[in-house]
Amino acid sequence: MTKLTHISETGEARMVDVSEKPETDREARAEGRVVMAKETLDLILRGDAKKGDVIGAARIAGIMAAKRTADLIPLCHPLMLAKIILDITPDHALPGFHVACTAKVNAQTGVEMEAMTAVSVACLTIYDMAKAVDRGMRIENIRLLSKKGGRTGDWRAPD
Amino acid sequence: MTKLTHISETGEARMVDVSEKPETDREARAEGRVVMAKETLDLILRGDAKKGDVIGAARIAGIMAAKRTADLIPLCHPLMLAKIILDITPDHALPGFHVACTAKVNAQTGVEMEAMTAVSVACLTIYDMAKAVDRGMRIENIRLLSKKGGRTGDWRAPD
Amino acid sequence: MTKLTHISETGEARMVDVSEKPETDREARAEGRVVMAKETLDLILRGDAKKGDVIGAARIAGIMAAKRTADLIPLCHPLMLAKIILDITPDHALPGFHVACTAKVNAQTGVEMEAMTAVSVACLTIYDMAKAVDRGMRIENIRLLSKKGGRTGDWRAPD
Amino acid sequence: MTKLTHISETGEARMVDVSEKPETDREARAEGRVVMAKETLDLILRGDAKKGDVIGAARIAGIMAAKRTADLIPLCHPLMLAKIILDITPDHALPGFHVACTAKVNAQTGVEMEAMTAVSVACLTIYDMAKAVDRGMRIENIRLLSKKGGRTGDWRAPD
Amino acid sequence: MTKLTHISETGEARMVDVSEKPETDREARAEGRVVMAKETLDLILRGDAKKGDVIGAARIAGIMAAKRTADLIPLCHPLMLAKIILDITPDHALPGFHVACTAKVNAQTGVEMEAMTAVSVACLTIYDMAKAVDRGMRIENIRLLSKKGGRTGDWRAPD
Amino acid sequence: MTKLTHISETGEARMVDVSEKPETDREARAEGRVVMAKETLDLILRGDAKKGDVIGAARIAGIMAAKRTADLIPLCHPLMLAKIILDITPDHALPGFHVACTAKVNAQTGVEMEAMTAVSVACLTIYDMAKAVDRGMRIENIRLLSKKGGRTGDWRAPD
Repeated sequence: MTKLTHISETGEARMVDVSEKPETDREARAEGRVVMAKETLDLILRGDAKKGDVIGAARIAGIMAAKRTADLIPLCHPLMLAKIILDITPDHALPGFHVACTAKVNAQTGVEMEAMTAVSVACLTIYDMAKAVDRGMRIENIRLLSKKGGRTGDWRAPD
Repeated sequence: MTKLTHISETGEARMVDVSEKPETDREARAEGRVVMAKETLDLILRGDAKKGDVIGAARIAGIMAAKRTADLIPLCHPLMLAKIILDITPDHALPGFHVACTAKVNAQTGVEMEAMTAVSVACLTIYDMAKAVDRGMRIENIRLLSKKGGRTGDWRAPD
Repeated sequence: MTKLTHISETGEARMVDVSEKPETDREARAEGRVVMAKETLDLILRGDAKKGDVIGAARIAGIMAAKRTADLIPLCHPLMLAKIILDITPDHALPGFHVACTAKVNAQTGVEMEAMTAVSVACLTIYDMAKAVDRGMRIENIRLLSKKGGRTGDWRAPD
Repeated sequence: MTKLTHISETGEARMVDVSEKPETDREARAEGRVVMAKETLDLILRGDAKKGDVIGAARIAGIMAAKRTADLIPLCHPLMLAKIILDITPDHALPGFHVACTAKVNAQTGVEMEAMTAVSVACLTIYDMAKAVDRGMRIENIRLLSKKGGRTGDWRAPD
Repeated sequence: MTKLTHISETGEARMVDVSEKPETDREARAEGRVVMAKETLDLILRGDAKKGDVIGAARIAGIMAAKRTADLIPLCHPLMLAKIILDITPDHALPGFHVACTAKVNAQTGVEMEAMTAVSVACLTIYDMAKAVDRGMRIENIRLLSKKGGRTGDWRAPD
Repeated sequence: MTKLTHISETGEARMVDVSEKPETDREARAEGRVVMAKETLDLILRGDAKKGDVIGAARIAGIMAAKRTADLIPLCHPLMLAKIILDITPDHALPGFHVACTAKVNAQTGVEMEAMTAVSVACLTIYDMAKAVDRGMRIENIRLLSKKGGRTGDWRAPD
C-alpha cells in the first residue's frame, strides 16, 4: 500500500535507511518564479545593467542554500553535491523572474530537495532585495520539473 | 527617487546601515500553500491523526529556519526574534495545506524575511515528507500578508 | 601502547587520518534519559495525547543534531548519514523519558558520535520544553549501547 | 493552571512571545560529568600534562556550542551571550571529569539552555577524544545548578 | 599588568564577560589583498566586464561570513550587526584586488573580528574562483585599519 | 583557451560539475602567518607555557573551519574530509606564528580551499585572542604550498 516513507509503521518521523541502495547518478531540476510590479522589475534590471547584483546575489544565495538543505529540511540526508546551476531569467510579461535549478549527485538518495531549496532561497533573496519598493511581490509555483536516476527511475512534470 | 536599498550608488550589493534607526516593536505575517493530490492530503492526515508528524515536523522546520534567515539571505540583518508562530492548516478544497507564520521582534529593522523564510521551509518540509508518493506537488503564493512597526509604518496586502 | 588517537605524538589535537581505511557499513546505538517529576511527565503526555509535540519536537531536534555532529564536535569527521532513528519512550517508573538513537553509515569511520549527539540534543529539547514547570530535571546516563563494523569490529555495552 | 509554555492552547509547538518582557540581567549555571575507567582518566591527564588538548578542545567545543544553542534546540530564542565560562575538572574518585558552565546575558529570556548545551557538548567532546580507548564511558547528571534574573527570579538546585 | 583578556587567571580560554559594559556605537574597518598573476587579473576583469560575478560572489561571501564570525572564532561574542560594506577594487600595479570591509554595531563589544573575517572570506572566495588558472595567488596583509567606540576609544593603524 | 571554471560561458557564477571525475586521493597543504609585536608573542607563549590555550584554541578553530568550508565559500563542493592537521609554530624572528594545514580527502574535487580556510581562521583566532594588547597584528602570506592528486596532478609552490 502507498505510504509516506518518512513516517514509520508506528507514526513517527524518521530519516529513512538508504544504506542498502546503490550509489547512482542522480539529477533534479526545479523551478519557481517571483511575480512583481512592472516598475520593480525595471528597477532591478536597471541596476543589473550596471553590476548585476540582485540576480548575482540571488544566484549565490541559491547555490549556498542547496548545500544547506540537510541542515534545513529535517529528514533530508546529507549529500555530496556534484553540481549546482541556477538560472535566473527576467520576464517582462510576468512581470518578474523565472528561477530554475539543476542539481546533480552520485548518491544513494535523490537530489530533488536540493534543487527545490535552491530555487526557494533564490526567490526569497530577490524578494528581500526589492521589498523596500514592492512588498506585494509573490513567490509562485515552486515545483519539481524532472528527476533522473535512482530506483524509481526518471520522472518529468506533466506540463 | 525610488531605489533598491540593498544596492549602493555605484551598484554593489550591501547590507544597509540600520544603526541610526530606533529599536521598535515589529511584526510580520506571511503565508503560502502546498497544493497536492487529494490522495496525498488524505495520506498525510491519516498519519497525522495518529501522531501528527508531517505537520509537526514542518512546524519545527519552519521555526528553526526563521532563526537561520540571516544565514540564508545574504543581506538580511541578524535579529533577536521574540516570537515565531507557524500555522499549518489542511484544506480539502485546495487540496493541500495553508502555511502561515507570524514573527515578532524589537529591532532596528523588520522581520518580514523571517516570516517568509519560515513559510518557505515549512512548505519544503511538507514536500519532502510526501514527495515519494506525489512528486507533482507545488508550493504556491508565498507572500507577505502584513507588517507592523518601523519607519514605513503598517502595511497590509491588498486582497 | 594505548594512546588517544585524537592527540598526536607531540600532544596536539588532530583529526585523525582515515584515508587508508576501507568504507564499511557501520551502525551505532546510543541511549540516555531525562528524569523529571511525576507531574511533569503527566503534563507532557497529556499534551502529547493531543498532538505529540514535545516528543515530536525532540525527535526532530535529535535527527537534525545528528547531521550537525561534525559541526559541534571538533575532531569528528563529516559523514554521509544513511539512517537516523530516534526512539523516545515515556517511563512512569523513572519517571521521565528514555531516548535512544540508531545511526547508520557506509564510511571510513564510525557513527558513534552521531548517535550520542542525537540523544543529547533530544534530551536537551525535552528539558527546554518542560523547564518552565520543572527546572530540576536531569539528563542521565548518556552512553553507547553498541556499535557494528569498522576495523575494531562489533562492541556491545556490558550490561 | 500549570502548563507547558512551548505548547499552545491547541497543542502545537511554538516559540513563546517574549516581546513584552523587560531585558534583565540573567545568569545560569549547569553541570554534568563524564565517568570513565581509571586508565582513561590517567591517559587523558598524561597527555594534558604536556599540552592540555582534551580539556582544551572540550572547553572550546562547549563555548562554541553555547553560541549554537538556538540552532540546535527548536524553540530556544536567539540570545546575545555576554559571557560563557566552562570549568572542566578531573576527579580521580569518580573517575572522570566534572564539567560546569556559567552563562550570562542581558535579555528578555533566560540563558539556562545555553549553559546546559555547553555542558553537553563539552562532555560529548571528551567522550569523542577518548572513545578509541574506552567506549563504555557515560555522560551523567546533566542538570541546572542555578539561575538568576527574569520574572520567575532566582532558583537553586535542591542539593 | 598587560594580559590576554581571553585567558583566565588560571590560564584557560574563556569568552570574556561584557555584561557590565554599556552598549555603544562601534565601527571597525579592515583590509587585505589578493596578489595574482597579471593574466589572472585580466581574466577576472574580462569576465566581470560582462557580469561581475567573481567580485560579486566575493562580496556576498564576505558579507555572509561577517554574520558567521561568532560561529567561526571560538571566543567572539554574537553581535547584531547593523551594517556591512565590502569594497573590492582591482589594482593593475599589484596586480590583484584590494578588499576592505566596514562593519558597524551598537553593542557591548567591538566589531573588529567581523570586519577581519569578512575580508578573509572575500579573499578566499577570489582565490577559489581563480585557482584553476593560478594556484600561486597569495592573500596578504589582512589587518585592522581603524576602530571607533567602546571603552578603549578610537584607534587607527600607524601607516 | 584559459578560462575561469567557476564562471559559465554566459558569465554567471556556478558550482562546476564534477560528477564525471573519478574519486582520487587528494591532499593539499597551505600556510600563513600572524606577525605581531615581540611583547605580544611573549605574552602568548607565557600563557601557553601554562596551558597552551591560544595555540590550542586556534588549532581547534582551524580544524572546525575546514569542515565549514563549503558553507563559507560559495562555489566550493561539500567534501568528506579524511584528515586535517594544523601546525602552529612560534617564530621569535618574525615575531609571530607560522600556521600550516594539511588536508586529505578521497573525492572528485580538490581540498585546497579547506586547507586555505583552516589557515585563515586559525590566524583570525590568534588575532582575536591577542587583539586587546596588539591591534596592529597582521595576517600575511596565506597561500597554497602544494597539492597532490586529481586530473591536473601534483603542484608545488615555486619557492
